Amino acid sequence: MNDLLSRALNSEPIERPPVWFMRQAGRYLPEYHVTRAEAGSFLGLCRAPKLAAEVTLQPLRRFPLDASIVFNDILVPPAAMGMDLDFVAGKGPVFADPIRDVAQLKGLKKPVIAEDMPHVLETIKLLVAEIDVPLFGFAGAPYTLAAYMIEGSGSRHFEHVKAFSMHHPKEFHMLLDTLADICAEYLQAQVDAGCSAVQLFDTWAGDLSTDAFEKWALPYAKKALAGVSGVPRLYFTRNAAPYLHLIKGIEADAYAMDWHVDIARARKQLGDVPIMGNMDPLTLNGPPEVIKAEVHRIIRAAGPTGHVFNLGHGVLPITPIEGVHAMVDAVREWRW
Amino acid sequence: MNDLLSRALNSEPIERPPVWFMRQAGRYLPEYHVTRAEAGSFLGLCRAPKLAAEVTLQPLRRFPLDASIVFNDILVPPAAMGMDLDFVAGKGPVFADPIRDVAQLKGLKKPVIAEDMPHVLETIKLLVAEIDVPLFGFAGAPYTLAAYMIEGSGSRHFEHVKAFSMHHPKEFHMLLDTLADICAEYLQAQVDAGCSAVQLFDTWAGDLSTDAFEKWALPYAKKALAGVSGVPRLYFTRNAAPYLHLIKGIEADAYAMDWHVDIARARKQLGDVPIMGNMDPLTLNGPPEVIKAEVHRIIRAAGPTGHVFNLGHGVLPITPIEGVHAMVDAVREWRW
Repeated sequence: MNDLLSRALNSEPIERPPVWFMRQAGRYLPEYHVTRAEAGSFLGLCRAPKLAAEVTLQPLRRFPLDASIVFNDILVPPAAMGMDLDFVAGKGPVFADPIRDVAQLKGLKKPVIAEDMPHVLETIKLLVAEIDVPLFGFAGAPYTLAAYMIEGSGSRHFEHVKAFSMHHPKEFHMLLDTLADICAEYLQAQVDAGCSAVQLFDTWAGDLSTDAFEKWALPYAKKALAGVSGVPRLYFTRNAAPYLHLIKGIEADAYAMDWHVDIARARKQLGDVPIMGNMDPLTLNGPPEVIKAEVHRIIRAAGPTGHVFNLGHGVLPITPIEGVHAMVDAVREWRW
Repeated sequence: MNDLLSRALNSEPIERPPVWFMRQAGRYLPEYHVTRAEAGSFLGLCRAPKLAAEVTLQPLRRFPLDASIVFNDILVPPAAMGMDLDFVAGKGPVFADPIRDVAQLKGLKKPVIAEDMPHVLETIKLLVAEIDVPLFGFAGAPYTLAAYMIEGSGSRHFEHVKAFSMHHPKEFHMLLDTLADICAEYLQAQVDAGCSAVQLFDTWAGDLSTDAFEKWALPYAKKALAGVSGVPRLYFTRNAAPYLHLIKGIEADAYAMDWHVDIARARKQLGDVPIMGNMDPLTLNGPPEVIKAEVHRIIRAAGPTGHVFNLGHGVLPITPIEGVHAMVDAVREWRW
């Protein structure tokens, strides 16, 4: 087993940072589209362990990566809570009946993971039998899941979830608390099935004021991670800079940084906790020499221990594969 | 003349912060839609001084605000440079022929403000004859204008401008330098026409890595503001937190903060420079008591001098007018 990720997350000496990247199994790869077509639908792909394992393996066949992440979607748990979820071409995830009033909360059920989401665990078991790099499990963080459940889809301004939080703060706290319990149980089940690390994605928390982040995102991300043991637990939000003075309160084992953040300053502010990131995914659309220089700038700024190289957000469908090669090569040729 | 804004921007004693808000003349007001319909098109409205002055005055009639901002659009200068601009319903600004290769840069002309953009200056002259609060002029900052000119419209990922900057760095620097000259001249003309303050909007610079911000946004925003004298010059980006350690280098007289930023921490980091902001525009969709508490929290955090109350971004079309009343009332009842 490749132990570079484990050494980096333990702040042990590393000759170079490990490299993997968010959404590394995905639409920028032509072979992904083939398997996706075979599955018939995006949710069908998430729920078919053999096909989900296949797309998880695809980037590992192309690039010599140091970690992998199980193919899945953060909205699988809300769907298992009884919300009718579909993925609409060009629009992404859509809940048919978003939560817009308090009465709807009663209709949500607490999912039983082995019964309502067995496919994720099966996909993980298939993968750990086959790969020799660590496998990440993941979940959406409570605030981010609640934002999707209330907006009904991705949103530019998050007007519905923000209005809900202001008009029904007590019920919103209760929903987040329930989601934190579900996240913890779901992540622990992924660990028990064989994952070597887990990541909590709090993508939309990065849209909150610092005050709102402290109220709605932080305590529930903390609670979700507190319920998971046995592996390193990472936390990601899409815009960490406003909250750098707060996020250590989440008590994650490492923090993934978006590309806006100066990684050297983030390390100083966070103290001796390992960090992951943080190249702008669009850098991969530049010429190879620009990609290489940027990779090396980030590694140098992050410093010699406790750094996992990654993008600052998921790789985009418009990413050229040569760009990914240039990035992975540049990380692998680095020596401390 | 109401001198509260001027005192706040000079860090003189104030009994309460002055209040105005970005896009205060706009789509959340029913009377705006009437005047907009009369103008026939959005650009037609910008270019008709009497109608532009009318919509500038509309929020002043409804709310006792301490400042106003001339109704105009940041893309008027690129249009005056020869780029074919239209505003498409549901999509916003669209350039028919976005800049995608270096050869297109030669087609851009240097606008003569009095000839190519006379309407803005006329609108300002009409307004200063009529109002007793300070009038802001404004311009888009060089990086933000370049982003629009290259993307061709608003963008989620800014793939075209980022690719252009990586593949043609020399030409991109030249474009930004030209835009900085145009911004400076354009802002100074607005001052000469009667504006009491100017604001440079660098909305999209907030999407850059700290390193890219330092390369592509900061020096050109600085150059644009350096060419303006006689009034306070403010700088805004949509996401300031990653760059707080850098933006004083822009040498603005005050900085407008988006809602993600903790305003007390920003003040500490920026030192004794006045600050503007920074309530989440969506707070206005909450109940009046939540709005009041949030207004007072921000005023308390910003401190007793050098603070102009504003939203952290433009007011949204979905904003209820009662919410705006609650915000303005809450600012006006505050006493230091």
